[in-house]
Amino acid sequence: MLLSSRIRRKHEALHEHIGLEPPHLSRTSTLLHTPQASRHLVYIMLLQPNLTLPSVSGRIPFAKSNLDEYNPSEFVAFDVLRPRGPPDQETQAASLSVLSVDMRATENKKDHNTHKYVSSNLIVRRNKEFTIIIKFNRDFNKQQDNVELEFLIGSSPDENKGTYIILPIGKEKPEVRWKSRVVETQGNYVTVGVTPDASCIIGRFRIFVVVVNDLGKRRTTRNTETDVYVLFNPWDPADHVYMVKDEDRQEYVMNDVGIIYNGEFSNITYRSWNFGQFEQGVLDACLLVLDSGKVPLFFRGSATEIVRQASALMNAQDDDGVLVGNWSGDYAEGTAPTAWTGSPEILLKYAKKSGETVCFAQCWVFAGVLNTFMRCLGIPARVITNFCSAHDNTGNLKTDIVLDEEGKVDQSRTKDSVWNYHCWTEVYMKRLDLPEKFSGWQVIDSTPQETSDGFYRCGPTSVNAIKEGELSYPFDAKFVFAELNSDVVFHRSDKEGKMKILHVDTGYVGKLVVTKKHGSSDYEDITSTYKYPEKTVKEREVMQNAERSGMAIGDNLPKPEAGVTIELQADTVKIGDDFKLTLNINNQTSKTSTVNATITGCVAFYTGVVSMTFKTENKAATVEASKTESLTVDVNAKEYTPYLVEQAKLLFVVYGHIVETDMSLITMKVVTLQPPKLTLTMSGTPQVGKDLMTSVDFQNPYNFILQNVQLRIDGPGLMPIKIKSYSQILPGGSVRYKVSMVPRTPGKKVLMACLDCPLLRQVTNQVEIEILKS
Amino acid sequence: MLLSSRIRRKHEALHEHIGLEPPHLSRTSTLLHTPQASRHLVYIMLLQPNLTLPSVSGRIPFAKSNLDEYNPSEFVAFDVLRPRGPPDQETQAASLSVLSVDMRATENKKDHNTHKYVSSNLIVRRNKEFTIIIKFNRDFNKQQDNVELEFLIGSSPDENKGTYIILPIGKEKPEVRWKSRVVETQGNYVTVGVTPDASCIIGRFRIFVVVVNDLGKRRTTRNTETDVYVLFNPWDPADHVYMVKDEDRQEYVMNDVGIIYNGEFSNITYRSWNFGQFEQGVLDACLLVLDSGKVPLFFRGSATEIVRQASALMNAQDDDGVLVGNWSGDYAEGTAPTAWTGSPEILLKYAKKSGETVCFAQCWVFAGVLNTFMRCLGIPARVITNFCSAHDNTGNLKTDIVLDEEGKVDQSRTKDSVWNYHCWTEVYMKRLDLPEKFSGWQVIDSTPQETSDGFYRCGPTSVNAIKEGELSYPFDAKFVFAELNSDVVFHRSDKEGKMKILHVDTGYVGKLVVTKKHGSSDYEDITSTYKYPEKTVKEREVMQNAERSGMAIGDNLPKPEAGVTIELQADTVKIGDDFKLTLNINNQTSKTSTVNATITGCVAFYTGVVSMTFKTENKAATVEASKTESLTVDVNAKEYTPYLVEQAKLLFVVYGHIVETDMSLITMKVVTLQPPKLTLTMSGTPQVGKDLMTSVDFQNPYNFILQNVQLRIDGPGLMPIKIKSYSQILPGGSVRYKVSMVPRTPGKKVLMACLDCPLLRQVTNQVEIEILKS
Repeated sequence: MLLSSRIRRKHEALHEHIGLEPPHLSRTSTLLHTPQASRHLVYIMLLQPNLTLPSVSGRIPFAKSNLDEYNPSEFVAFDVLRPRGPPDQETQAASLSVLSVDMRATENKKDHNTHKYVSSNLIVRRNKEFTIIIKFNRDFNKQQDNVELEFLIGSSPDENKGTYIILPIGKEKPEVRWKSRVVETQGNYVTVGVTPDASCIIGRFRIFVVVVNDLGKRRTTRNTETDVYVLFNPWDPADHVYMVKDEDRQEYVMNDVGIIYNGEFSNITYRSWNFGQFEQGVLDACLLVLDSGKVPLFFRGSATEIVRQASALMNAQDDDGVLVGNWSGDYAEGTAPTAWTGSPEILLKYAKKSGETVCFAQCWVFAGVLNTFMRCLGIPARVITNFCSAHDNTGNLKTDIVLDEEGKVDQSRTKDSVWNYHCWTEVYMKRLDLPEKFSGWQVIDSTPQETSDGFYRCGPTSVNAIKEGELSYPFDAKFVFAELNSDVVFHRSDKEGKMKILHVDTGYVGKLVVTKKHGSSDYEDITSTYKYPEKTVKEREVMQNAERSGMAIGDNLPKPEAGVTIELQADTVKIGDDFKLTLNINNQTSKTSTVNATITGCVAFYTGVVSMTFKTENKAATVEASKTESLTVDVNAKEYTPYLVEQAKLLFVVYGHIVETDMSLITMKVVTLQPPKLTLTMSGTPQVGKDLMTSVDFQNPYNFILQNVQLRIDGPGLMPIKIKSYSQILPGGSVRYKVSMVPRTPGKKVLMACLDCPLLRQVTNQVEIEILKS
Repeated sequence: MLLSSRIRRKHEALHEHIGLEPPHLSRTSTLLHTPQASRHLVYIMLLQPNLTLPSVSGRIPFAKSNLDEYNPSEFVAFDVLRPRGPPDQETQAASLSVLSVDMRATENKKDHNTHKYVSSNLIVRRNKEFTIIIKFNRDFNKQQDNVELEFLIGSSPDENKGTYIILPIGKEKPEVRWKSRVVETQGNYVTVGVTPDASCIIGRFRIFVVVVNDLGKRRTTRNTETDVYVLFNPWDPADHVYMVKDEDRQEYVMNDVGIIYNGEFSNITYRSWNFGQFEQGVLDACLLVLDSGKVPLFFRGSATEIVRQASALMNAQDDDGVLVGNWSGDYAEGTAPTAWTGSPEILLKYAKKSGETVCFAQCWVFAGVLNTFMRCLGIPARVITNFCSAHDNTGNLKTDIVLDEEGKVDQSRTKDSVWNYHCWTEVYMKRLDLPEKFSGWQVIDSTPQETSDGFYRCGPTSVNAIKEGELSYPFDAKFVFAELNSDVVFHRSDKEGKMKILHVDTGYVGKLVVTKKHGSSDYEDITSTYKYPEKTVKEREVMQNAERSGMAIGDNLPKPEAGVTIELQADTVKIGDDFKLTLNINNQTSKTSTVNATITGCVAFYTGVVSMTFKTENKAATVEASKTESLTVDVNAKEYTPYLVEQAKLLFVVYGHIVETDMSLITMKVVTLQPPKLTLTMSGTPQVGKDLMTSVDFQNPYNFILQNVQLRIDGPGLMPIKIKSYSQILPGGSVRYKVSMVPRTPGKKVLMACLDCPLLRQVTNQVEIEILKS
């Protein structure tokens, strides 16, 4: 036996050494009983007695894929004093064997809140019992028959690692975390209840029924139809992702359509997003993301680990992640970030090409797909928008904006930017790795930025920790804190290039944080979960905490008090409109003030990066004590339209000089130009099984040709996504796209459409429909 | 002007857009004054007024390379009402200009403890003044002349980011962190003192002297000889890497030779290592590592960031790191990990091929090169060896070893391993990001393992935090804690494959942690800096802290108290020797015990992975109450020699069964077989400038041929490394390699040699020599 086992090890090692999969146990086990094969191997060894070839490598590899399989053989003989080999026909006839296994997918899925997943396989949640029915060839005898249920995941199933679970049917096995019991026995039908433990690995498990007798073990044949997916369980208090309120779970786990807010804080716009976490193939795509990212299987029971890895894996930097970020304006090699209507199209594209990256994304796409990933695996999640988000500024608390000697933005010296809005994702969980107060909502962010940790990922960071300025705990708290709390420092350089600080705006960044309200398309203002109000004692304490955590809180910057304030106002403006800016100058002093103002108008990206200065204008006003004067600046469409980029935002900076006191004033404002809307018209009866028609209409309101236009219509639960291309739409020209569908499930549904082309981005609309029962 | 600056921006943006470097400012600035060029660009813009081409991308890239340069032009005209263009000959003659800049490298380096670096450039440490002498064309007038010193690093110098420092000479500039002063003026020679601030970016800065007059700025020409390297400063209390004691700094920063301990805890062996942080080209190689790893320049002032990034960058996983880890036993494609004698050979090889990875490394190589990197940049560092290091077990506190029903190790079910030793690196620093008590020594580890963070890096982790079990703070504390504190759980599987816990050994892992003593080649036991003693109240508290930080402390595992203990003993054994194992059975009960013992002998890697079982033996003993019996097991060389791997370690596991009580006993022990030593003989006078001869002798003591033998001789400060290859050494055959050298500096030096071939690894020796002054 010793020599045989040596040979087997050597044989396996040789396979491993030359890069082959280890041979199946069944074959190896056959080897032991085939004198010829044994002799052959012994012969090799005797010939090379001095060979120091390592039998195995010095490191044992880890299982990092749910897809890879390594299953035990169907028959394993025990090492007893009996004839070896599979039992003969006679023995087999007398013994128990399994005829079929019914996973009861439909019944179990209803109990497990997994009925919405479009999949024929059973999908369950942790720490909740599901029942399966095993049909034997004869009556099952609990006392005499020795039957085991096996659950396996990955390529090296190991009882000590939670990747190989063996449950005796009808017998106690205290050291195993999963529980099993016989619920009912009816002749040769046995109903078995199985409860995966509350912190078990999530993913796709293979299942075998094993009949054990004196000769050995006999397993059922590998059958993918009995594979069971185990997910996180926000319904169970023992699971780390437990949520108390059902209305929260309905929104943050079960809702497969959402709203992502954008625009700017004083003029919030939005678009619908198809999260589609239950759509066919999406769950497999999410597991493929973890496999491609080589996330070891035994980390997959921890919500903290899963979300940390996922934040890295949604972007293609560093790893085989899902989406390629692109802010260049050139999206010809893929789909423009603004053109997508939801996550399933992206995830299914990624899965179809076995993990090839998808082009392209910007922040809301990363946040939307990450949100889908989380809800799909059962982790409560929501998409957040932070208006005026400090970014790319290396996690310090300063965003530097440099004006030249004329008071205009000096683009060559302004390297920082404040994003008009930035989207990230929040997930809800117990942080077992941190003190208890840091549990709850956590920030994760897949948008590739320069994180302080050098890799393209961010979080999970406790929202509570951000609010309290306790930034020493993992992960990336300083970076998120800076996004919400940076000061904007305005510098002015003189003609020699020497810089002076003009003004520090402590209230510009992190103006407003919002997410979708549950059961509504309105937004909920959650700023107070991230920040204490400006200029309160608590706010100062938080900054002190942050400083103790190693945050560089800037030097004691001068904050001149001029007694005069300026403010810019603008109404909602459509792309292509002329409009007026109002500049209000308020003199709170007791003396008359003369203000010379320079207004610079720039075209800007949503990232705050300035593309082109299209306007400068000088204005002067004399404001009497305790009075306000308003100046008007006319902005003509022909001034800005030649230079518009992406999401059509204009940044106005006003530099004011007070003649009497030689003091400076500064303010800035972003005007988001509204794109035209699509028109959605429905006809027919909104009822399950009935025909429903939708037409999407668009007319080009501009005097230029729109080229390479893509139109997407997406209706989660109504129809699969449809994409229509138009090579051009002439000035004044219009297009109409008609789609028919037959709703299959009742309830509230959203139909959304998006038109996108290089000269006009993110033309959208959506309509809500209540589908009646048939 | 507005149009001109627009054109310039567009021009730059176009370059950036199509992937070119932005044009030099000088050229752009020329553009403004060349009517032809301007007109040409205006023409392009007028032709395409509706073109929505983005002027710049929506994201501004960060500087991530010290090598890339972007320098301002030599002449920049001011925008004043005078004729444009460079000043004419007459104006220039009257004005001040710079004739030369003397960096005073030799004098400054002595003051800055950087005199050991072999480099003609100036190398200084932060927050300490260095002086340079500027020679002008005429007397310098502090009141009238306007001169600036500029220090630039990277491709986008920015005053707000610490990558562009402008220091007026003889004038105050309070907002700048670097300080400057005029030390002395002698006619047209001005001595200027410059002090980089205590947290400035480290790396290679370019220097320009700028003369400013009414017309514009004139810079000195780019000259690489005046480039200055700024390093961390452990001598300065304001620097975060400050060390109080000079003897510590001499060892952990200035010592360029060290000792790395290996073997096993009861039989510690060692080898010398050439850290070589001062050797020519090593500093540039270290900066190249950061550049290749795309570490943003503004992170490079933070010791915490630098060490975190470096721990990832020493291995080639995930990134363009330095070394490829290989534990396969097959090193034909590179250099065997055991063959290296030090870091410079590796780092210079990496740099020579512009950042191509070097093959191959195991833990001590990673730790040694990482140590060089740290000392080279001025961060105090030392190499640590942890004996019996739990590894690859995913950061939980269990290492599972499975025995089969006969009491032998079941290799197919034992996936964890305890490394006989593991080397990592400690660095010393203030952790500004953590509460103060976590400052001091920090663990960093470049050996690619499965860290809990999914990437191949580890640390910095506070040693104090590990000792106290406070594992919530970054980075990777749980992983390091597990390496030191895991329990070894012995399972036994019965014939049906069902497992039962036999025994839990809480004292096996993290047995002994050592590092080199300063000023000695002995080791210092630093176990108590990582752990409280076993079975103390403090140790229990630490485990409770660890559990609160989310560490899975295993279930309440049964610990049967048999009252009988077994222990294995062996003397030092040479490879090829027969030897005896002694098994001591101590009966502490009041009854006679009969023990049946199964001894399994396996060949093992230093990683604890078992390669091949070469011996099993059954022994029995009857031990009277309160007595000890000793059994002897004979191990013959011919039993193990055919199967030896790598570092020639044998693992013995003893499973004992007490007949009277049906209880189990288990113990294991590693025997490291000693390789032969090289003989080093010196002749000649050990004096600067005199010839010194060394011969290295080796005789093959085995009855097999050694093939593909590499012999390295390395003498830091004595001679560059020499490598000699022998295609074979016959049984009994001997080789002699003679090397002559001429020592250039006095003091204590180490000459080391290493012979390595696939059948025999790590045959080394070293000799210390005191070189006398000439």
